[in-house]
Formats: sequence, structure tokens, C-alpha cells
Amino acid sequence: MKARVHVMLKSGVLDPQGEAIRHALGSLGFGGVDGVRQGKVIELDLAETDADAARARVGEMCEKLLANTVIESYSVEIA
Amino acid sequence: MKARVHVMLKSGVLDPQGEAIRHALGSLGFGGVDGVRQGKVIELDLAETDADAARARVGEMCEKLLANTVIESYSVEIA
Repeated sequence: MKARVHVMLKSGVLDPQGEAIRHALGSLGFGGVDGVRQGKVIELDLAETDADAARARVGEMCEKLLANTVIESYSVEIA
Repeated sequence: MKARVHVMLKSGVLDPQGEAIRHALGSLGFGGVDGVRQGKVIELDLAETDADAARARVGEMCEKLLANTVIESYSVEIA
């Protein structure tokens, strides 16, 4: 079973990497970009076969390792 | 209009960051994780209002800046 986790900085948190991308896009002539946020995506290949159990397990992984929940939010998709 | 870009290492390319996460998950007692790949997600806020035009534009951005197409693949979602 595959799981995909998105980890993004929370909306109030400054995102210098996203700002750098926005600036670079402007320099390359890509106008009309009002905002950029960069985050991480983590794809996990799990032995677990039950979707609900996998979701709960991945949620735990996020809380303990994958995301810093003080400044980051995460979402889990199970496929 | 919002666009979300996923940039992942191509499947043949070694992903040390993913391997580090897999190892760390194992150390924390999360068994049953057969593979981990880590990539980037970039959320763009675009002034463009036409979905097809936005998709084409973001594709160009990926080719020129957001992805290194030698080793990375990208996918674009428009929302």
C-alpha cells in the first residue's frame, strides 16, 4: 500500500525557499506569480494492507518524525 | 488560480534522503516500511485564470527552473 504525505510550512510561517523561487521565476520572465510555497512530499511503500490502519500509522510517523508540527502541517493520502 | 507541482527523483536515481527517512522510521519502531522516496511540492498562486494556459505556463516553469529534468520528473495539478 502506498501513502503520500505532504508537509508544508503553516501559513503564518515565513517561507524563504518559496520566496527565492518566486523571485527566480520573475527574473526568468514568468510574471503573474503572486505567491509560492515550497514543501516536502514523502512517498511511503507500506507492507500494511488495511487503508485505515495505514492512515493511522502514517499519521503517527508524521507526528514523530516527518513533520515538525510547531511550524509545519501535514496531510496524508493513502492509495 | 492555484497550481501544485510535484518534483520527484526519477525511479532509477538514488534517493539518500528517502533512505535516511526509512532508516529513521525503522529506528523509531515503525516496521513494514518497504521504501521511501522524498520529493518537493511547490504551490504556486497564479494570476492566470485559464486552466490550460496555467498548466502550459507551469510546465515551462518546471522545465526551466523547478525541476532538473535529467534526474527529476514533475507533475502539475491545477486547482
